[in-house]
Amino acid sequence: MYITDFSLNLPQNILFGKNSFKKLPALIPKYGKNVLILTGKKSFFQTIHWRNKLKNQLEKGNIQFIHQTVSGEPTVSDIDQKVIELDKTPIDLVISIGGGSVMDTGKAVSAMLKEKKSIIHFLEGVGDREPSGDKVPHIAIPTTAGTGSEVTKNAVISQVGEQGFKKSLRHDHYIPDIAIIDPELYLNCPLSIAASCGMDMFSQLLESYLSIKGNYFTDNLAENAIRLIVDAFIPSITTHADQVEYKSKMAYATMISGITLANAGLGSIHGIAGIMGGFFLIPHGVICGTLLGEVNSAMIDILLDKRDDPVTLQKYLAIGKLFSQNSEDEKEILSNLLKVFENWLKVLDMPRFSQYGLTEDDLKKVAEKSSNKNNPIQFSNDELFQLLKKRL
Amino acid sequence: MYITDFSLNLPQNILFGKNSFKKLPALIPKYGKNVLILTGKKSFFQTIHWRNKLKNQLEKGNIQFIHQTVSGEPTVSDIDQKVIELDKTPIDLVISIGGGSVMDTGKAVSAMLKEKKSIIHFLEGVGDREPSGDKVPHIAIPTTAGTGSEVTKNAVISQVGEQGFKKSLRHDHYIPDIAIIDPELYLNCPLSIAASCGMDMFSQLLESYLSIKGNYFTDNLAENAIRLIVDAFIPSITTHADQVEYKSKMAYATMISGITLANAGLGSIHGIAGIMGGFFLIPHGVICGTLLGEVNSAMIDILLDKRDDPVTLQKYLAIGKLFSQNSEDEKEILSNLLKVFENWLKVLDMPRFSQYGLTEDDLKKVAEKSSNKNNPIQFSNDELFQLLKKRL
Repeated sequence: MYITDFSLNLPQNILFGKNSFKKLPALIPKYGKNVLILTGKKSFFQTIHWRNKLKNQLEKGNIQFIHQTVSGEPTVSDIDQKVIELDKTPIDLVISIGGGSVMDTGKAVSAMLKEKKSIIHFLEGVGDREPSGDKVPHIAIPTTAGTGSEVTKNAVISQVGEQGFKKSLRHDHYIPDIAIIDPELYLNCPLSIAASCGMDMFSQLLESYLSIKGNYFTDNLAENAIRLIVDAFIPSITTHADQVEYKSKMAYATMISGITLANAGLGSIHGIAGIMGGFFLIPHGVICGTLLGEVNSAMIDILLDKRDDPVTLQKYLAIGKLFSQNSEDEKEILSNLLKVFENWLKVLDMPRFSQYGLTEDDLKKVAEKSSNKNNPIQFSNDELFQLLKKRL
Repeated sequence: MYITDFSLNLPQNILFGKNSFKKLPALIPKYGKNVLILTGKKSFFQTIHWRNKLKNQLEKGNIQFIHQTVSGEPTVSDIDQKVIELDKTPIDLVISIGGGSVMDTGKAVSAMLKEKKSIIHFLEGVGDREPSGDKVPHIAIPTTAGTGSEVTKNAVISQVGEQGFKKSLRHDHYIPDIAIIDPELYLNCPLSIAASCGMDMFSQLLESYLSIKGNYFTDNLAENAIRLIVDAFIPSITTHADQVEYKSKMAYATMISGITLANAGLGSIHGIAGIMGGFFLIPHGVICGTLLGEVNSAMIDILLDKRDDPVTLQKYLAIGKLFSQNSEDEKEILSNLLKVFENWLKVLDMPRFSQYGLTEDDLKKVAEKSSNKNNPIQFSNDELFQLLKKRL
């Protein structure tokens, strides 16, 4: 066996664990005295972590900070507006504390503070310029086990509507300078958010593991992260959502999903979600979660039927075995894996597309524009449409 | 199970595989036109890789380069001399192509070109200043499966003799900007060098895996790298040393050993090697290799006897099982693992200390100064002396 060629672009600094957030204040002074703090609308500022671990420390250290809030997945005008508001305010460091939307806003604002132009110019596929990579230093602190944005180099920026898109601002330098991953910050996340974030994260792990761009390094990490959360996934969101032990496993798996997606790419589910999220206001994690069962079921059917891709089939079996440790029977392992996914959708109450007002015509439009990214099976647009319809 | 707290400091860019070296010329221009190339004495300049993949490309691109050679493990005066030679020569990029000594020289020179002082001021434990982290960009390209220096943040600098030492120049920024890991460059490495490098690398993996500072991320990577080389280790150095397939596994495992040692630390073998290498001119890999069997044998004896460290015992069993896949018997697995190590020493003809002229008194002096680093078992100086004597 050769180890096939690969390239890796990795995050430089990660602090992980339930004592990591309290290390933040000591890290700030080396960047300067003026900090931009980005949080979600349900403000982090209400929490004990802010009061006990950050606020006093900032005051003691004579650190000036500006606070901006982020609501929903960031749009072109959100980012431009935030940068304009900061005009003439010196910012030495951006700290983003929240979910993927907040951290992506952190990446985008920290970069645009240097580019001094609308972000639309720098977005892949719609812009007319390459980003320089210059940015204000950025520390990302996730509070949901979702996107893994704390360790990736892109920010996903949307424009929702008829001409809508979801496109990336991307540069190696946009990986946050430091990711602080503290599972205590993940506690008490509302169930519906934890559910959609968790489904997004799991799909990121599975898609990057199955990706045709996967490599020995990312495969190893992804498989091991899935192994870690087999028993923790549902409890961490539902029955044990108040236990750091469970959240720490989800936080770790999320970090790994960010590393693997950034280095191995993603598959058809994210190929659909990127398009659908540009047209319609549906949370990204809901799209990924609601499609998890159907897309993987279709892939496994094709693999068993054609038997022309033993590598991917073996990978499904490796994942399947993590969920059925005592079985050696191929069909049993795979059908059990699909039952697990089916059960997750039920337990986590993953919405259908119609609950967001989508019609069959809407799904057709989405299917026509969707890509399979690095999926090992390349579905036709009609096949994608049939899959989408099953979740209407 | 909690995932215990950890911090990671990772390399930013890695190009891995048998087509990666040829990507080097395209990477140079973004840094500038003036390049310092460091190689070993047995010059890389004699190889087909230089002629076919780099020389013409540099000429075409109008890239000016200066060539310096490195012989042996770098000393304070080696580094100072190289920096003085480059005075007034603008250097935009340092490229180090060789073993650990060459890459460590690359790290040290790229940093000292900015510090403009003798490196002795910046060495841990002997210097009087902290390095600033400022450096000339550095691309590291290993040609031996040994130290993993291509992905670590420290350069080991020696001063050999009565007052000798081996100390690190260390800063997060000293991780090479890009590591190019091309297993074709590892082909045809002389057996004695491949053997000592391989033993150093394997011990790095095992020591960091067993380290009390190990974490879920490094444990996963280390175990998986060892799994990869179980069948490839000896053939890659001996019977199959001309096959890229084998070298690619060793190259991968070496890269991982660099990541794990930098983030989990090392144990008693490297605690001894650091001291011995300061006093005596013995290759670092020989010290690690010759001690592999005895130190691990002593550790396993203590673990089985005291039964007070189930975590480390389980780790030894996990590694042992990779070498005896059909056994479930604890004693059998562990004794087989030690037989494997014993056999490696024989097959690779690992020298004894007396072959380098060392006496019992010399070993006593080494044992007195040695540390156990992050070894799970803390040997006394007398215990270390007894272990060293077994390899006199």
